[in-house]
Amino acid sequence: MNEKYADDSLMLHTDLYQINMVETYWEDRMHERRAVFEVFFRKLPFGNGYAVFAGLERVIQFLQQFRFSDSDIDYLRHELGYRDDFLDYLRTLRFTGTVRSMREGEIVFANEPIMRIEAPLAEAQLIETAILNIINFQTLIATKASRIKHILGDEPALEFGSRRAQEMDAALWGARAAYIGGIEATSNVRAGKLFGIPVAGTHAHSMIQAYQDEYIAFLKYARRHKDCVFLVDTYDTLKSGVPNAIRVAKELGDQINFIGIRIDSGDLAYLSKEARKMLDEAGFPNAKIFASNDLDEDTILNLKSQGAKIDVWGIGTKLITAYDQPALGAVYKMVAIENERGEMVDTIKISGNPEKVTTPGLKRVYRIVNKINHKAEGDYIALESENPQQEERLKMFHPVYTFISKFVTNFEARDLHVTIFDNGRLVYTSPPLSDIQAYAKESLRLFWEEYKRTLNPEQYPVDLSQACWDNKMENIRKVKETIARMSTKE
Amino acid sequence: MNEKYADDSLMLHTDLYQINMVETYWEDRMHERRAVFEVFFRKLPFGNGYAVFAGLERVIQFLQQFRFSDSDIDYLRHELGYRDDFLDYLRTLRFTGTVRSMREGEIVFANEPIMRIEAPLAEAQLIETAILNIINFQTLIATKASRIKHILGDEPALEFGSRRAQEMDAALWGARAAYIGGIEATSNVRAGKLFGIPVAGTHAHSMIQAYQDEYIAFLKYARRHKDCVFLVDTYDTLKSGVPNAIRVAKELGDQINFIGIRIDSGDLAYLSKEARKMLDEAGFPNAKIFASNDLDEDTILNLKSQGAKIDVWGIGTKLITAYDQPALGAVYKMVAIENERGEMVDTIKISGNPEKVTTPGLKRVYRIVNKINHKAEGDYIALESENPQQEERLKMFHPVYTFISKFVTNFEARDLHVTIFDNGRLVYTSPPLSDIQAYAKESLRLFWEEYKRTLNPEQYPVDLSQACWDNKMENIRKVKETIARMSTKE
Repeated sequence: MNEKYADDSLMLHTDLYQINMVETYWEDRMHERRAVFEVFFRKLPFGNGYAVFAGLERVIQFLQQFRFSDSDIDYLRHELGYRDDFLDYLRTLRFTGTVRSMREGEIVFANEPIMRIEAPLAEAQLIETAILNIINFQTLIATKASRIKHILGDEPALEFGSRRAQEMDAALWGARAAYIGGIEATSNVRAGKLFGIPVAGTHAHSMIQAYQDEYIAFLKYARRHKDCVFLVDTYDTLKSGVPNAIRVAKELGDQINFIGIRIDSGDLAYLSKEARKMLDEAGFPNAKIFASNDLDEDTILNLKSQGAKIDVWGIGTKLITAYDQPALGAVYKMVAIENERGEMVDTIKISGNPEKVTTPGLKRVYRIVNKINHKAEGDYIALESENPQQEERLKMFHPVYTFISKFVTNFEARDLHVTIFDNGRLVYTSPPLSDIQAYAKESLRLFWEEYKRTLNPEQYPVDLSQACWDNKMENIRKVKETIARMSTKE
Repeated sequence: MNEKYADDSLMLHTDLYQINMVETYWEDRMHERRAVFEVFFRKLPFGNGYAVFAGLERVIQFLQQFRFSDSDIDYLRHELGYRDDFLDYLRTLRFTGTVRSMREGEIVFANEPIMRIEAPLAEAQLIETAILNIINFQTLIATKASRIKHILGDEPALEFGSRRAQEMDAALWGARAAYIGGIEATSNVRAGKLFGIPVAGTHAHSMIQAYQDEYIAFLKYARRHKDCVFLVDTYDTLKSGVPNAIRVAKELGDQINFIGIRIDSGDLAYLSKEARKMLDEAGFPNAKIFASNDLDEDTILNLKSQGAKIDVWGIGTKLITAYDQPALGAVYKMVAIENERGEMVDTIKISGNPEKVTTPGLKRVYRIVNKINHKAEGDYIALESENPQQEERLKMFHPVYTFISKFVTNFEARDLHVTIFDNGRLVYTSPPLSDIQAYAKESLRLFWEEYKRTLNPEQYPVDLSQACWDNKMENIRKVKETIARMSTKE
């Protein structure tokens, strides 16, 4: 750690090229031109049919703290050689942009803007890396948690993954994201403290080792912790752990609240069924069986199909790292910029990959909800100037396979964005975290089961308005003309 | 964020069960008994033949800051209901233990203690979660980076993954770990500032969009940034990007240092070969081609086999998340504890899985280096009391398949641990980060190529001394006897 520059500023949590671009803009007096960027991802993670948006609170924190610290400036000057005039400018920078975003807990889909940033070009550029870093991870974990809860229904799941998380922030913010996705509690005490998430935990194998006698260890633990869950697999689950748990529960009787046992290794299906029988026969039919050991939605589904007798599910590595797909590919793309005459003009990025061509222009996302059955018909991306609610009959069509289309009537068009910052001023108050969790759960009711199953879900429609599509085609045409002119010149 | 308890204390970055166990120990006056824990992992990641240890610096930071803050105590009291007497005790806690550890950059293997903590039981327990969280992630990324560099040799690789990292700490400490593993630079400016890692970066697609003209954008950028790498795939790499880069390089001539171009999408093999031809024909044979887009050791090997003309490799998502195996499973296991008579006694955890049975006792790890060819013969785990250097002829045997054995003579036995904390006092100074990177690179020379190839490497021997093995068998026997007694009683 370089003590000379050590402080807690997050302002340089950005890619170097952002600063280089900003320097170019500043030298060129472009830096205050209004620019619009959108955050979106192109592909849902885990083959899931939806994602659960999380990360907004951390983004708000980051934007509120947006300023270069003295040590940031010193580093840029002395180590990277940026010039004083530019650094004097950076030092004055604060975030003055307007941010519209989905709410945390919102159900979101591929290719729709999760967040929209309108800001002076320099500011908008400097925040890209941190915003993506935050949203990519937290949305990924909230979505993974939601998949797990989809299989579990009302059976409780606990997040136990801190020790396998990708460094500390991932453990902390991942616990929060998992809670948004529906997980009931975390083992991470700091997450409990900072976010008010319920915390859970019992004891580890090391406690048995410390006492060198499983029975004594259970007994000592139970005397202090009246609400007891005994970890039974330190030596031998069925021959030693469960019998010792039962012995202590019987001996202490009403002095304790024997909640149950936890199994952390071995054949969870077999051991849980055997342990269930032993607990029942011993007169503890209400004692619960907790299980953990590399669980995720697939192993849970399998355990259930084998008739495993598990009541509470401890989920570690597979959730907190999103093990089967540890990154979401959300991007931050410019869709419009102020030109030298002060007019907003659309921008596009072309690609050999058709799905990587961006959709230009200021846009809004509406969730089209059928007023009769209260189910979502699809999401509808329209230009800022449009108002789909005024349409009697809305034509929705696939943005790539345009011949796939339908007409919707008797609908409500819900604008999915809320304003978070208005010209730099925070105008949004985050709801309590438990409300965010409830919002995610409630929002899922809008969708047919076919979109929510964990394997091969139906694709939920995310469509462009006709005007939005026409505008995109026009922008593509213009770029192609420019390229054609270049080729001719050669 | 719960403002009432918001502070930057990391002390509650632990699992709740640690605090519950400590409470039990404290109530039972066990909390100050000396305990020994070891950190090790059971399986090398990515099918690699070795791992590169990283994370020690962050562990040192954490242990130096080991103390419950006022808000930690308030939270434990008011929200979790811990009792005042216990909280008064927690408030006085500081880390007073002794830590022996591998150096950062050390080449490490499965089932050998990377770190050994001897401390009062309560302290040793409270730090487990954070230590594993740190070491698991940083060692994973350093190892992934080392694999990539193994394929690249002297060709430079840049770490570009911040936006896809699992939250901010992962981007920051991951950049540091990647550097330890051999990566030349990072795009993350904060990592550059805090750790002195070289930073790298050019410009993004958005700069082309901002100017709405690729040629003008390159020109403006080049005028400010004399050392230029142009990103050429915003509209069309070969028809627009490369020709515009060449045009600007020719027009500005000696006014700039035209380093090269970057390709971030499309068929990197084809595009790089075509771009190479165009650059050469235009008179820029020294212009370098940078490439990026979901690269890792496998895609790099493939690109090389196709004759891709890539000089500098930008590595993002696949490195910073260790995409193909995003968690290392290092554990923290008690190997000895002081009993009620003040004697240290060994502890063991049994498992149905033979490789999950822990190896009891205070141990050291020696790297047995052949004095003739200067290659490592294997690692040798011995009891604290042993001194393998005094042996004329060392018997090394496989800890599971014990019939696989060899005798080694004319060797040096290098103790791989250094003392970091001595009874709470930090006695170790971390070397400069560039020395750590050099140490990792140099250390790899000790090993035959067969252990280092990225696919199906030979397994490097990590053996137990005879005394260590006998001790383990004796401990297993004792536990089995206890379990047998229980079964008989039933």
